[in-house]
Amino acid sequence: MRKITIGVMGPGESATAIECANARELGRLIAREGWVLLTGGRKVGVMDAASQGAKAGGGLTVGILPGANTAELSDATDIAIVTDLGNARNNINVLSCDATIACGMGTGTASEVALALKNGKKVVLLTEDRSIYDFFQKLAPAKVLLADKPEAAISLVKEILRQRA
Amino acid sequence: MRKITIGVMGPGESATAIECANARELGRLIAREGWVLLTGGRKVGVMDAASQGAKAGGGLTVGILPGANTAELSDATDIAIVTDLGNARNNINVLSCDATIACGMGTGTASEVALALKNGKKVVLLTEDRSIYDFFQKLAPAKVLLADKPEAAISLVKEILRQRA
Amino acid sequence: MRKITIGVMGPGESATAIECANARELGRLIAREGWVLLTGGRKVGVMDAASQGAKAGGGLTVGILPGANTAELSDATDIAIVTDLGNARNNINVLSCDATIACGMGTGTASEVALALKNGKKVVLLTEDRSIYDFFQKLAPAKVLLADKPEAAISLVKEILRQRA
Amino acid sequence: MRKITIGVMGPGESATAIECANARELGRLIAREGWVLLTGGRKVGVMDAASQGAKAGGGLTVGILPGANTAELSDATDIAIVTDLGNARNNINVLSCDATIACGMGTGTASEVALALKNGKKVVLLTEDRSIYDFFQKLAPAKVLLADKPEAAISLVKEILRQRA
Repeated sequence: MRKITIGVMGPGESATAIECANARELGRLIAREGWVLLTGGRKVGVMDAASQGAKAGGGLTVGILPGANTAELSDATDIAIVTDLGNARNNINVLSCDATIACGMGTGTASEVALALKNGKKVVLLTEDRSIYDFFQKLAPAKVLLADKPEAAISLVKEILRQRA
Repeated sequence: MRKITIGVMGPGESATAIECANARELGRLIAREGWVLLTGGRKVGVMDAASQGAKAGGGLTVGILPGANTAELSDATDIAIVTDLGNARNNINVLSCDATIACGMGTGTASEVALALKNGKKVVLLTEDRSIYDFFQKLAPAKVLLADKPEAAISLVKEILRQRA
Repeated sequence: MRKITIGVMGPGESATAIECANARELGRLIAREGWVLLTGGRKVGVMDAASQGAKAGGGLTVGILPGANTAELSDATDIAIVTDLGNARNNINVLSCDATIACGMGTGTASEVALALKNGKKVVLLTEDRSIYDFFQKLAPAKVLLADKPEAAISLVKEILRQRA
Repeated sequence: MRKITIGVMGPGESATAIECANARELGRLIAREGWVLLTGGRKVGVMDAASQGAKAGGGLTVGILPGANTAELSDATDIAIVTDLGNARNNINVLSCDATIACGMGTGTASEVALALKNGKKVVLLTEDRSIYDFFQKLAPAKVLLADKPEAAISLVKEILRQRA
């Protein structure tokens, strides 16, 4: 039986300290729920922080890598999917999740949110920047949910899972 | 010798009449410059209109299809690239162009703009909605250019090509 | 810390009873070693049989699906990676494994063996048809290993892991 | 109206002098028919030779590159499709052609033949090694055609196009 898989997407090298702290907490909370954490798998920023949080919480972590090998892999990733697709792997990230949380924002994260919405999926935005929500909300009304804290993001994920069931 | 290839990206089924008219004019202008037009290849919206314009202008057109065959292909496309990648083909669209023009906006187009910027490429936004420019400009300062008319978009493309040379 | 992941590739709808029995045994043995099983994820043939075997053995299973959702997923798969890449996902299958076992042969499996070899990886062929071994061995000398039974295939996988360490 | 597109696939760095001469002649013959030539786009081996032949014959050439830019591009390629997909781009090569000719054999070429057959497409093998034909013929009876000279390969392509029409 397939395990529920929740994605945490966000900036890599350019992630802020707050984004990383939020990602770590998201990872911990996802593990606490018994869900699998899925990230972009690299050893930087939000991907790494979320994976570290999930492992600290006893969870299982999957990383979808853009490169052709595991050189960039976060050591908090249990299962590495090696795609060699570059940024095209972002579409796999969002297709493989039951719900996606964008923790912070950058060009890669924006592509993931847009691809999730294009694929008809809901996205939780964890950000204090309301203009990000406004931008995506206009493109896909009722598909974008805004959270200001990790706990609130997890509550919205539960709502997405409930509606789907 | 590789031909200069300019991408026109934009909404499919949800494209407005103005977006389609702009796309048609962009296609015509791209053909006039002797450039190859590259689109997402489908027989709808901005993709189809731009291709029709380029063919009316005597140009060459390439379509990068998301599906596994040519069933959806615009009949104004000369060369069909059949990817069977779904929305992951959006990354190929922007990687294959010397410059990309986003004509209108939707979730697919937003993913293409974000992927272009993530890949370090400049994008011309042809839109009257300044908030779209503000959103992407904040994510990638100096990589996003705003145009209000097709002629202005082509001028910005020429500037991108000049800076690169 | 990344878990060792072993791929079992083979025919879907056209798999024979022997191929399915071998796949089931391979899955069981992979689980016994504490390795993760990776397959193409679909609910047919070798993919499904290997996953069922691994679950019966208490193992963890990953399925890399070609489609855009989990409709085709084997119910013995724990973690579904939804690629929407069609047959291009075969490259991900082989890149993501520490070693790949081809259990039986078909056009999809042949593409996976060829892609694994192209990516510089070793492949174990579990088959009684020596001409399959001869074909691939000629293309990539010393990269193809032949096994006649599941137990022998697992021994060869251990050798591949040892050489790599 | 989409132009007929014929693919020539074959070894890169490891191509033999005969394979390159055959590829060059195939390119010339494809151009003579007014067809577009599609290759893997790189500046080596069969890809480059076929493209050079087609350009010498006044044809149009498309190259589907595995990398993220045009650094590896054959200078006899008119239109570069930049995929950043690594070897997964092999699936696009064969999906985008009306017919595929494998000129010589290697692990990459074997993956392309197998993927073409998996996608239900016919393939012409231009080779003197009958065992290659036997291998693929067994996997997909009636889908593989054998040619000993470029002229014969082109005749078989015409037959494929006729049957499809």
